[in-house]
Amino acid sequence: MAKVAVLGAGAMGSALTVPLTDGGNKVRLWFTEYDLRIWELVSRGKEHPRIGVKLPGNIELYRPEELANVLDGADYVIMAVSSRGVLPVSERIRDLVEGRNIPVIIVSKGIEVIDDRVLTMTEIVKEYAGTDITVYVSGPSLAVELARRKPTFVVYSSKHIDIARRIKDDFETDYYRIEISDDTLGAEIAAALKNIYAIAYGIVEGMSKRANEIFNNLKAAIIAKALKEMAGIVQACGGKRETVYGLSGIGDLYVTAMGGRNSMFGQLIGSGMSVQEALKEMERRGVGVVEGYRNADTLAKYIAGKGVKKEEARLFYAVYSILYENAPREHVIEALK
Amino acid sequence: MAKVAVLGAGAMGSALTVPLTDGGNKVRLWFTEYDLRIWELVSRGKEHPRIGVKLPGNIELYRPEELANVLDGADYVIMAVSSRGVLPVSERIRDLVEGRNIPVIIVSKGIEVIDDRVLTMTEIVKEYAGTDITVYVSGPSLAVELARRKPTFVVYSSKHIDIARRIKDDFETDYYRIEISDDTLGAEIAAALKNIYAIAYGIVEGMSKRANEIFNNLKAAIIAKALKEMAGIVQACGGKRETVYGLSGIGDLYVTAMGGRNSMFGQLIGSGMSVQEALKEMERRGVGVVEGYRNADTLAKYIAGKGVKKEEARLFYAVYSILYENAPREHVIEALK
Repeated sequence: MAKVAVLGAGAMGSALTVPLTDGGNKVRLWFTEYDLRIWELVSRGKEHPRIGVKLPGNIELYRPEELANVLDGADYVIMAVSSRGVLPVSERIRDLVEGRNIPVIIVSKGIEVIDDRVLTMTEIVKEYAGTDITVYVSGPSLAVELARRKPTFVVYSSKHIDIARRIKDDFETDYYRIEISDDTLGAEIAAALKNIYAIAYGIVEGMSKRANEIFNNLKAAIIAKALKEMAGIVQACGGKRETVYGLSGIGDLYVTAMGGRNSMFGQLIGSGMSVQEALKEMERRGVGVVEGYRNADTLAKYIAGKGVKKEEARLFYAVYSILYENAPREHVIEALK
Repeated sequence: MAKVAVLGAGAMGSALTVPLTDGGNKVRLWFTEYDLRIWELVSRGKEHPRIGVKLPGNIELYRPEELANVLDGADYVIMAVSSRGVLPVSERIRDLVEGRNIPVIIVSKGIEVIDDRVLTMTEIVKEYAGTDITVYVSGPSLAVELARRKPTFVVYSSKHIDIARRIKDDFETDYYRIEISDDTLGAEIAAALKNIYAIAYGIVEGMSKRANEIFNNLKAAIIAKALKEMAGIVQACGGKRETVYGLSGIGDLYVTAMGGRNSMFGQLIGSGMSVQEALKEMERRGVGVVEGYRNADTLAKYIAGKGVKKEEARLFYAVYSILYENAPREHVIEALK
C-alpha cells in the first residue's frame, strides 16, 4: 500500500483517486486556490461537479495552505494541476521533493513558453521542482469514464523504468491498466499535437453537419494523415514513431476527436463560425480552455525549432492558418491532397 | 482519355464510374448475372439501388453475356465483383487479357480458400487471369460517399509503380485522390484484417449501448491495440508496417468501425445476442455478407501459417473465439490487458 499525494482536484486528479483507492493505496487530495468551489461540494460529501461522482470516502482532503502536510510521508506525488499551474506548484514543492527521491507522476498536459523557451510538463517539473524522478501519464483517459470505473488503458512513461514498474504494481486495478514506456518526450509531444488534429477532425465534422452529409471517407483520411504527421513530428523532436502508433498517439487522438473540447471548437468553425465567434461560443458554453487553440502557436515554434518543414506537417499548418491567419476552413481538405 | 472496363455493377464498381467519368475517361460497366436486378433499374435511367444515385449518362452498360465486348479495346480493367466472383471472372477474362498488357485494377476485397490454399484477390487474378500487371485499391472508401462526390482518399498498390502512376493521372479528380504504394500484400492483408477488428469495436459499442454508458476510453484502446496487432501481422506476412499506419490500415479501420456491416454485426453480439442470432438478424436486415465472420477462420489459418503466434494477436483471437468457440464477449476487453 502506497501513500499517494494528488495535487489538483480538477477532473483528472479527482478521477484518479478512484482507481488509486480501489488499488489499495492511501490517497490524499490537495485542492489549489482554483479548486475551492469544488472543495465546497466535495468536502461535504457531495458529487464532484466535473466528473459527476462522489469521491471515495476514505481519501484525505487538503486545503490550498496545507501543501506541506499533503506531501509529508508521501511515496508518490501526482501533478494534476492545470498546465499553467505546473510551474508555480513545482516551485512550491521543490523543498519537499528535492533530493528525497519521491517520484513525481505528471498527468498535466501541454507545452508552455517560459522565458522564451518552450518546455514540456516534464521539463518544467524537472527544472522547477528540482527532481529527476518523473513519470508522465498519457493515453485515452476521459476523467468522467475513469471515475465511473470504465475500462481505461494508459501509458506511464519514464526513463526510470524500474520505478514506473513499481508504480504500475501499486496503481493498477482490473479496470485501470498501465503500459510502461521509456519515451516520455514522444508521449508529451503527441499529447500536445493531438489537440491540433482533433480541431481538424472537428472542422470536417462541422462541415459535414452543415451540409447534412456524411464525410466518413474524409474523416478517415484526416485520421490517417494526422497519424502520419504526428509520427514524423515526434520523431523529429527526438521521440519514437511507435509511441504515436499506440495508446499515447492514435488512442488519445481517437478519444479527443470523438468528443473533446478541441473537436467541439473545430466543429463550430466547420459549421461556419469565425474563430473569434467559436471562441466566444465555447466561453458561453462554459467548457473551459481550448488547449489546441492556445498551444498551436507554441507548437508551431517548437516544431520549427526542431527542423520540421511546413510540407512535412501540412495538416498541422492548415489548422494553424485557419486559427491565426484567417484561412478558409477548406484548407484542412487541401492539406490532404 | 482512357477506356475503362468496370467488371461488376455492385456498389463500388458503380460508384467508381462517377469519378472515372468526371476524370474524362470513357467508362463501360459490365453487369454480372448477380447484378441483373440492378440492371433493370440502371438501364432505365433510375437510381442505382445500392448507392442511391443515377450513374453518369455517358457510360456504356454491358449485359452478362457481353464480357468480350466490354473488354474490347479497353485500356484498363477494374475487377469489382464479389470476392467469390473474382476467380470465375478471372478465368473468363483470361483469353482477353493474357499477354495483352492490360492492367487489372482490383477493388474486390478479402482472401479466399482455393483448393486448400489461402489466396489474396491479387494472387487469384494473377493466377487465374494469367496476368502479372495488377493494381490493388484500398483505403477508406465508402461507395455511397464516393458516388456522391464526397472527398475520398485511396491507395493504389502495385509493383508496377510506373503503371500505377499513369492510372493515377488518368483517374484522379478533385475529390477522388490516389496515393501510390508498392506494398500490395500489406494492403490486402490489412483490408481483410480490419473487418475482424471492426467486429471487436462493434462488440464494445454494443456493450456500451446495452449498459447505457460511454466507453470511449475502451474504444480508443481497441483501436490502438488493433493497429498494433495489424502492423505485426502484416509484417509477419511480408507486408510493411507503414501500410497499416496509413489510409489502407487505420483509415480503412476507422471507416469500417464507424459504420460498416462488420461493426454492426459486432454491436449485435455486444448487445447480448449469440453469434447465430446476430447472423440471423443481419440476414433479416438484408445488409449482405459479414465479411469478417466469413474471413476470420481463413485469416486465422493464413496468419498461423505465416508464424504469427496467438499472443501476438490476442485481440484477433479473442474475436475468433467469440465467433467460433462460444467465448464470452468480454474477451475483447481481456485481450487488451
